[in-house]
Amino acid sequence: MRSVLAVGAHPDDIELGCGGALAAHRAAGDAVTMLVVTGGQNGPGLVAGRQAESEAAARSLDCLLIWGRLQDCAVQADAGTIALIEDAIRRTEADVVYVHAPDDSHQDHRAIAAATISAARHNRRVLHYRSPSTTRFEPSLYVDISAHLDRKLAALSCHTSQVESSAMVDPEVVAASARHFGAQARVRFAEAFVPSRFVWDLSPPPQLPLALAEVPAFTTALQRHGST
Amino acid sequence: MRSVLAVGAHPDDIELGCGGALAAHRAAGDAVTMLVVTGGQNGPGLVAGRQAESEAAARSLDCLLIWGRLQDCAVQADAGTIALIEDAIRRTEADVVYVHAPDDSHQDHRAIAAATISAARHNRRVLHYRSPSTTRFEPSLYVDISAHLDRKLAALSCHTSQVESSAMVDPEVVAASARHFGAQARVRFAEAFVPSRFVWDLSPPPQLPLALAEVPAFTTALQRHGST
Amino acid sequence: MRSVLAVGAHPDDIELGCGGALAAHRAAGDAVTMLVVTGGQNGPGLVAGRQAESEAAARSLDCLLIWGRLQDCAVQADAGTIALIEDAIRRTEADVVYVHAPDDSHQDHRAIAAATISAARHNRRVLHYRSPSTTRFEPSLYVDISAHLDRKLAALSCHTSQVESSAMVDPEVVAASARHFGAQARVRFAEAFVPSRFVWDLSPPPQLPLALAEVPAFTTALQRHGST
Amino acid sequence: MRSVLAVGAHPDDIELGCGGALAAHRAAGDAVTMLVVTGGQNGPGLVAGRQAESEAAARSLDCLLIWGRLQDCAVQADAGTIALIEDAIRRTEADVVYVHAPDDSHQDHRAIAAATISAARHNRRVLHYRSPSTTRFEPSLYVDISAHLDRKLAALSCHTSQVESSAMVDPEVVAASARHFGAQARVRFAEAFVPSRFVWDLSPPPQLPLALAEVPAFTTALQRHGST
Amino acid sequence: MRSVLAVGAHPDDIELGCGGALAAHRAAGDAVTMLVVTGGQNGPGLVAGRQAESEAAARSLDCLLIWGRLQDCAVQADAGTIALIEDAIRRTEADVVYVHAPDDSHQDHRAIAAATISAARHNRRVLHYRSPSTTRFEPSLYVDISAHLDRKLAALSCHTSQVESSAMVDPEVVAASARHFGAQARVRFAEAFVPSRFVWDLSPPPQLPLALAEVPAFTTALQRHGST
Amino acid sequence: MRSVLAVGAHPDDIELGCGGALAAHRAAGDAVTMLVVTGGQNGPGLVAGRQAESEAAARSLDCLLIWGRLQDCAVQADAGTIALIEDAIRRTEADVVYVHAPDDSHQDHRAIAAATISAARHNRRVLHYRSPSTTRFEPSLYVDISAHLDRKLAALSCHTSQVESSAMVDPEVVAASARHFGAQARVRFAEAFVPSRFVWDLSPPPQLPLALAEVPAFTTALQRHGST
Repeated sequence: MRSVLAVGAHPDDIELGCGGALAAHRAAGDAVTMLVVTGGQNGPGLVAGRQAESEAAARSLDCLLIWGRLQDCAVQADAGTIALIEDAIRRTEADVVYVHAPDDSHQDHRAIAAATISAARHNRRVLHYRSPSTTRFEPSLYVDISAHLDRKLAALSCHTSQVESSAMVDPEVVAASARHFGAQARVRFAEAFVPSRFVWDLSPPPQLPLALAEVPAFTTALQRHGST
Repeated sequence: MRSVLAVGAHPDDIELGCGGALAAHRAAGDAVTMLVVTGGQNGPGLVAGRQAESEAAARSLDCLLIWGRLQDCAVQADAGTIALIEDAIRRTEADVVYVHAPDDSHQDHRAIAAATISAARHNRRVLHYRSPSTTRFEPSLYVDISAHLDRKLAALSCHTSQVESSAMVDPEVVAASARHFGAQARVRFAEAFVPSRFVWDLSPPPQLPLALAEVPAFTTALQRHGST
Repeated sequence: MRSVLAVGAHPDDIELGCGGALAAHRAAGDAVTMLVVTGGQNGPGLVAGRQAESEAAARSLDCLLIWGRLQDCAVQADAGTIALIEDAIRRTEADVVYVHAPDDSHQDHRAIAAATISAARHNRRVLHYRSPSTTRFEPSLYVDISAHLDRKLAALSCHTSQVESSAMVDPEVVAASARHFGAQARVRFAEAFVPSRFVWDLSPPPQLPLALAEVPAFTTALQRHGST
Repeated sequence: MRSVLAVGAHPDDIELGCGGALAAHRAAGDAVTMLVVTGGQNGPGLVAGRQAESEAAARSLDCLLIWGRLQDCAVQADAGTIALIEDAIRRTEADVVYVHAPDDSHQDHRAIAAATISAARHNRRVLHYRSPSTTRFEPSLYVDISAHLDRKLAALSCHTSQVESSAMVDPEVVAASARHFGAQARVRFAEAFVPSRFVWDLSPPPQLPLALAEVPAFTTALQRHGST
Repeated sequence: MRSVLAVGAHPDDIELGCGGALAAHRAAGDAVTMLVVTGGQNGPGLVAGRQAESEAAARSLDCLLIWGRLQDCAVQADAGTIALIEDAIRRTEADVVYVHAPDDSHQDHRAIAAATISAARHNRRVLHYRSPSTTRFEPSLYVDISAHLDRKLAALSCHTSQVESSAMVDPEVVAASARHFGAQARVRFAEAFVPSRFVWDLSPPPQLPLALAEVPAFTTALQRHGST
Repeated sequence: MRSVLAVGAHPDDIELGCGGALAAHRAAGDAVTMLVVTGGQNGPGLVAGRQAESEAAARSLDCLLIWGRLQDCAVQADAGTIALIEDAIRRTEADVVYVHAPDDSHQDHRAIAAATISAARHNRRVLHYRSPSTTRFEPSLYVDISAHLDRKLAALSCHTSQVESSAMVDPEVVAASARHFGAQARVRFAEAFVPSRFVWDLSPPPQLPLALAEVPAFTTALQRHGST
């Protein structure tokens, strides 16, 4: 069983970037935690609504959700942000960290990518995902999401406020990109990643019973699915 | 009116890589010539059939078609191949040259890309298109093909022998990639290109009557649509 | 008629980077706005003098000039700077945005490049120009300024305080670089650009009478040529 | 159980580039085949001796060895070489292909890298390894060989003719590079790879008994350990 | 005699990155100044202890040491940091500037690299060294430290607080990397650098007597070896 | 005293690419050999005339000239070409090798760059120069030729047949590029290079009397200045 941490700047970023891979991790019995760094205060939709959307999305992907509570559009790659992500890495004992790609037109995405590269400096597996606002992106690592695209789209559809009003969140494009990258990966649907550092573990991960796998030790301290 | 030359290694390469842009050029009143360097002897389908498919595709795009008559899977970026392409550039008086991207898993695509870079050394506009077998590709220039995707797919469907049996020629993937690159370009459907050298002509091209535009001076010497 | 927005950190940056292209745009009937983000407080010369120099340069290029009023050497790529540039893009309804290249030894240039990439995230044409302080720069798109180099140099010569005392502003080097890039572009003199995203519009832009073209709707609200 | 194919131009190339990873694959129960494309006619040592060295090395790594019988220093990335590698991929039903990196000062290494990229165009996992003669190499994928470095060095020591007389084959450097890349990968010793295309399989590979795993179906047709 | 300035974010960064090259510069009769920008408040060890360690290391390398007194983990590439480095460049009349590589997982390293690129904008020789936390690094310039590796390791061993407790400061890895890069450079041990800008001076530098060479004019104003 | 070898595909390539650096090497007392691989049979001008031009140019730069006698436009990066260059490296005992950049629109330039990278695999200093036909080129190493530009232009003017009729050989562009790269290097005129591998020798080279320096031991075996 692996422990997976996905970091995103705003509600819906993680689902867009690696929602299919997270579903594949869950299907393989891995524990998955989503860290959403801001409440998405500046996008369309109210913060309370967006948090509820994220909670629904995390539930549909069967992942744990934790919040960073930084300010939308004002994220800095400073010691505070790095400490926040370090804390999540330490508490999840993350084997794999997913995060934004560094070249992105959204300043928060750039900052979260840089801060996570700092926070995950001792991690063996750091993978950058693509956002609709990513600029340069030359992927070389793929996850086959042919069996998981529907769950990705379902998770995305939980973000009603975004799907209805943001040009950047378009399920048609999400499916098209998954097919585009699938063809590159020689599978049907894929998500694409740029590895910052990826140690390929050739030995199969030990399998824990799923009941144990989905309840990390620190869930008493943190809100499960964001619920207080 | 511009004169456009598209160079491809095999029948269907040009349609896959820049069929939509060629349709857009025709719609803008530009003359377009397709140079297919080999007869595609090694793919699925007989050579005679593949030539007929290419002629049908060129006709559907309303482009001129010329053949290079080199050997499939044995193309070299040598002086002979370069001379062949130089000749096409000179006779079409090409303002724009489209060709394969240099990094590709097919050896003929690599060779044609290199030979065209040599042949077009005095040209001001050389654009590399993507094939299903292209490996590294970081596009920065796009053509909006939202109004032309159907013509691209129609041209591609003329290559019956390929669509039916080659994993690399899949209309579903073609449409998905057009949507993927469209989102990158902030339009609906786009083809993506890596400019080797692109001089942006700010002054509008002089418009000739379409009747003149579509009949380049040398068509008496070459076979129109490949017909003898 | 296109609407062009050029963004620069300091007085003279825009003229150095894309003054020739702006002259070519004006000659093609396009509307051009220059957004100078700081007053250049830290360079040689007084601020009032530098503003008058910029006004003279904008007048000589027949472009509209607007000021960002941020602090020289202290520009951040934060939400405020992004909003400033978004506002200029929205009011000019910019079709094309010119801005510094991201890799530059001046911190303000880096910040303005990053902030403009954020602000222009929905734009179809974003081109990065080169400054004397640019570090990495691999251009692939060029504008032929053979007919406009004299206007570029004339605009530059308006910045008397800089030409006289800054090693970075040297008309001899400006002409040499234009010839160097001209040879790369297969023309006589050229300016070179790295496209962040460039949708090539194959259809000729509709031509408006020049009198209309040069007076955008919002000029009553902003200072024309920077004059109060 | 995975089927692994490692392709190298000369005897000792595979051991130098990915000998540790091959040992790790064997330890994980995977089948491994080494395809040595030439007999190394031009290096120090006689061909017969070098073949015996390769056989000993393959035996020490417990891998299958097959020979390509092309001419040392005269390998071309042509249809013949591609067909040779395609044949090995098909017969091993390879899940993973290891090969030279494309930028290398040895012409045979460049040719084998290009030919393998062509031959493995339908494969989901193609990884480029580093040779002492590799020039550009920016790895992002690593295999932990802390438990296998001794086997790598033992396999290498079988190539007595090279270790004794080629400046490029130096066990001290091999160990140093493994430690260098190990530090990058956050393990003790590592081999580093550039993924051409890598689909990460999140589900654990089904485990076959080792006895079955080590005897691929086609070994009756090919020489096991190169022995006639 | 050259004047060399090495800039590092924390105590031990310079020794790790270019300690061997600095020893080689001293052996060639060059003057060398180390500028340590922060006191390393956040690493293991007390500040006073770390300063003493740096002083001992500088003494062992026979280099001048100056301190920047910025805050560990909070360095910004802002005007203040740039001015600090500009001041050191001006006072040392530096011919060569060594500094961190831009892509690094430590935010201070990134900031110091960017600030030094700004501060050294008029310098002819700016070389980026590698840290254990550097991420992307494609060196092309090397200094042969075969005769100086022992001095590098000795200088490093002065940083007792780090060697004992930081996974990033490991003499075994330092020696391994020196051998790894040595093999790349075709020498025994080397340090590797990415040149930001390097003017190769073909004429031999004039030799001053060592006594003069080691005492720059400004040492009365600054603390020699950091001692008050 | 260093021994310098410059390799070029055709007469005038070396002068265009690094003629100023060669003059600077001669001024510093280094021995310089120019290896012209083909006779330039396909350019404008007769072979005999072009050889005489090269001899005059080599004489004006005070360098030794040797010929490779391969066929213009048909150079392959094969074992024969590599052996030819290896032979020149061995006989000149070259410390520094200058050669074409790998990305070039002329097929011979690409082949010579690749063959020289192979031949110089044991050399510590291999620098790629730029030709008018070079495509991608991101230089980081420069030689100040402010005192040598006139000699470069004089050497170039010996190639009368090219200067008069080839668009690629234009002294105005040569001077402009030297000024352009000079500004990048913070000197007046510079030639720019991409280091494939460059070991910076910090110790001053031992100075021999010029009389000895200019007569390498093997000149009795080879034609001096190409004269038989």
